[in-house]
Amino acid sequence: MTGRAAPAAGDGPASAAADWWATAVSRIEPGLIELRGHPVQDLIGRIGFAEMIWLMLRGERPGAHQAALLEAALVASVDHGPHAPSIAVARMAATCGVGLNNAVATGVNLLGDVHGGAGEQCVGLLEEVVADGDAAAVVARRRAADKYLPGFGHRFHRRDPRRDPLLGLVAEAVAAGVVAGAHLRAALEVERLIAPVPMNIDGATAVIYAELGFPAPLARGLFVLGRSVGILAHAWEESGQGRRNKGPIPPSILPTWL
Amino acid sequence: MTGRAAPAAGDGPASAAADWWATAVSRIEPGLIELRGHPVQDLIGRIGFAEMIWLMLRGERPGAHQAALLEAALVASVDHGPHAPSIAVARMAATCGVGLNNAVATGVNLLGDVHGGAGEQCVGLLEEVVADGDAAAVVARRRAADKYLPGFGHRFHRRDPRRDPLLGLVAEAVAAGVVAGAHLRAALEVERLIAPVPMNIDGATAVIYAELGFPAPLARGLFVLGRSVGILAHAWEESGQGRRNKGPIPPSILPTWL
Amino acid sequence: MTGRAAPAAGDGPASAAADWWATAVSRIEPGLIELRGHPVQDLIGRIGFAEMIWLMLRGERPGAHQAALLEAALVASVDHGPHAPSIAVARMAATCGVGLNNAVATGVNLLGDVHGGAGEQCVGLLEEVVADGDAAAVVARRRAADKYLPGFGHRFHRRDPRRDPLLGLVAEAVAAGVVAGAHLRAALEVERLIAPVPMNIDGATAVIYAELGFPAPLARGLFVLGRSVGILAHAWEESGQGRRNKGPIPPSILPTWL
Amino acid sequence: MTGRAAPAAGDGPASAAADWWATAVSRIEPGLIELRGHPVQDLIGRIGFAEMIWLMLRGERPGAHQAALLEAALVASVDHGPHAPSIAVARMAATCGVGLNNAVATGVNLLGDVHGGAGEQCVGLLEEVVADGDAAAVVARRRAADKYLPGFGHRFHRRDPRRDPLLGLVAEAVAAGVVAGAHLRAALEVERLIAPVPMNIDGATAVIYAELGFPAPLARGLFVLGRSVGILAHAWEESGQGRRNKGPIPPSILPTWL
Repeated sequence: MTGRAAPAAGDGPASAAADWWATAVSRIEPGLIELRGHPVQDLIGRIGFAEMIWLMLRGERPGAHQAALLEAALVASVDHGPHAPSIAVARMAATCGVGLNNAVATGVNLLGDVHGGAGEQCVGLLEEVVADGDAAAVVARRRAADKYLPGFGHRFHRRDPRRDPLLGLVAEAVAAGVVAGAHLRAALEVERLIAPVPMNIDGATAVIYAELGFPAPLARGLFVLGRSVGILAHAWEESGQGRRNKGPIPPSILPTWL
Repeated sequence: MTGRAAPAAGDGPASAAADWWATAVSRIEPGLIELRGHPVQDLIGRIGFAEMIWLMLRGERPGAHQAALLEAALVASVDHGPHAPSIAVARMAATCGVGLNNAVATGVNLLGDVHGGAGEQCVGLLEEVVADGDAAAVVARRRAADKYLPGFGHRFHRRDPRRDPLLGLVAEAVAAGVVAGAHLRAALEVERLIAPVPMNIDGATAVIYAELGFPAPLARGLFVLGRSVGILAHAWEESGQGRRNKGPIPPSILPTWL
Repeated sequence: MTGRAAPAAGDGPASAAADWWATAVSRIEPGLIELRGHPVQDLIGRIGFAEMIWLMLRGERPGAHQAALLEAALVASVDHGPHAPSIAVARMAATCGVGLNNAVATGVNLLGDVHGGAGEQCVGLLEEVVADGDAAAVVARRRAADKYLPGFGHRFHRRDPRRDPLLGLVAEAVAAGVVAGAHLRAALEVERLIAPVPMNIDGATAVIYAELGFPAPLARGLFVLGRSVGILAHAWEESGQGRRNKGPIPPSILPTWL
Repeated sequence: MTGRAAPAAGDGPASAAADWWATAVSRIEPGLIELRGHPVQDLIGRIGFAEMIWLMLRGERPGAHQAALLEAALVASVDHGPHAPSIAVARMAATCGVGLNNAVATGVNLLGDVHGGAGEQCVGLLEEVVADGDAAAVVARRRAADKYLPGFGHRFHRRDPRRDPLLGLVAEAVAAGVVAGAHLRAALEVERLIAPVPMNIDGATAVIYAELGFPAPLARGLFVLGRSVGILAHAWEESGQGRRNKGPIPPSILPTWL
């Protein structure tokens, strides 16, 4: 079972079209929906949403402990308040006469290298430390180019309240043999080397994603899925408040105009 | 505890700015992250992702059975193959040199009234049937204006394989007293009246969302969250295949150009 | 000359694919680019950008006076300051590590029914007045449903400085026989009836677009093209200022976070 | 005249908010709209749209010959057929129940590094050749890293019909002393060195933008403005054809589904 769309047999262009859009993610035929090889009716009611995310991205179901780690990382990422650009723009979009989906898309569109990319970059850093074996050398090399290390430091929280519970779950998973722990150790070693700059949410979730074996770009992808929840919640709240064309600054301070 | 950002005390413009961006969704202060009134560290590891979605959208935690229904609807919505416009455009975007978040946003942006709105419209239909009490009258009225009823019929599947397991879960929830069942009965009555046109995925998930008490627009919002998983999975798969500027038709049939 | 892509001859699926993507806008073959039937090399250096917009949207070249009116409307629409949601979100996007095109797309995405739709709605109003012949009746009917008339009134400018020069150009065009003047008269009659609420930029450009014969939805489309210039200018300026993850409120008033 | 928004006098937070959103692009006060220091009423009817683009991006008005070169580059960029991903996705979006602005934004969102970035990269290449003085050395260095040079070669046109008229206009401008010609010479030298690979549209417009002194990233910005015209024209045409949820492949070849 490959999960690939079956090409239309015996016809050049139709077969070429099928190949062009072939995928291992899903297979759809009349009366049939297979997701990563599983008939959808075997999944509904039998698999959690976080497990489904794992299955869709990786092609196989996670173990229960793996799914729990992923779930914790997603839960931790949903929101960080209305002043995050991604949330603010979604709220503004919700007042401009576009669909709720357009408001969510507007927010997600801002989760770029600077706003949503630190987790991805931190997975890369942790992989580099694990591969190199010498955290101090990696940190020195990185800091020669950029004083900021992705996943460490926060201009707002002195200590991010999400760090400890996330790392605690990883430590438990290491103790239980669910994950190997090399990336957790790498992250803690980096944190020690650059003390007192603490690991932030991007760092703590990067540890989880790296331990679970997600490639670095999916750290951003998973952050998108998690943060979409907050983006939707904020856009929905804003849409119920009756504002039109909400600008960034209240009209009582600066006039809002178009 | 209101979850509202505390305004800066005693200062007009700063207070106005805080009010302008006030929210009941989250409260962020140095060292503190509250989501719907819950410190984030009390949520991480203790709440599932689907429960978290409910909490963020509605301000309270769901019961376990309610969360399971929501989870089933989300799982059922993740993907329907690469020919859905939302998926196709995300795959194309992934070959154009934009971030993975931009590819996901591109797909979500297409979940408009026609592509992603049937669930929302079907919740409205079911609410109308429940409020009116006469399904036949509602169907006649609706069909006088439009032969299609949102949530019913599929140009592809004669019988959508997602219908039965979703409605089965709702029936169990009714039997267990978790939900009241009025919207399920309304949907089945409509389906009977317009036989042999069957309920589709939008209809079946609309039954769940309506039974769970979500306002109609959130049926689209929740569909966005579910479908984002498939959009991400497809964009990620495509990004690993090395194509550049993927057009809709393979070059072997029609040349691709820019 | 039809401008349609020639279907691949004699092959069912390839021909069907060509038909599916057939267009009268452009025809592309190796060594050949035709835009609305004109070889591109006959256009470059011989047609202005505003004329090109007209040609692409309508399939024929405008007269010089028509093009001048369109050009004035586009020029008048480029910007109304950084507090317009479309501009603000583009500036915020430009600090989040996405491409300049993504920042522009983010701004354009907000030009929805409320933010960018008044011109389109005002063309509809003017067409209704012209068709009905009784402006007072139309105004009364409209105001019974909604006290605001699209294209009239401004919460910021008592008198929009763009109104007079735009209407002056239309009046000249009427005098010169370039346009008929019915929609200008309709707009002035409505303005008189609801005095002292003045025509705003959406109303004045709607007069131009209606006089030039653009269908109402293209009033929004043209506004998108005009405002894209301001969106780009602002995103570009912001990208040169070194901010990262710019939130709506300065950190000195409220902390910015992610 | 600075073009900066006047801060609210004598109030800390309000002044900080004004500073946070300060801009040299436009100044808006009740009854006043200044664009790059020019009252809007002095621009309407007196400046072309391409000149306005220049003014907004650079803060000063172009000369007539400079504006003509910019106009030619914009005209040449508007469209390259419905198989370009940016155009295809906008057409698909237009069938999904979103606004025309959302369809345009969807297309613009795809003009990333691979789809819309070659002009920007080619300006960089030309600047490097001009700065280095040794085209052969630059080409050798570049090709050691990547066999493709941005702005050269086309997988579809053997000779792009837009190349000659664009370069011809630049040559005239050099002869007239409007531009210096160094970047034109650099591009022709590169083309000679890598013959028979010809300059493409990205290369020819890059010559114009570089000769006119636009920084490299604005080559992409200007391409966005030009291509938005084609995106709009295609989305508008598609919206008149009554399709719903248009997929990439016609249902006669492969079923379209959602």
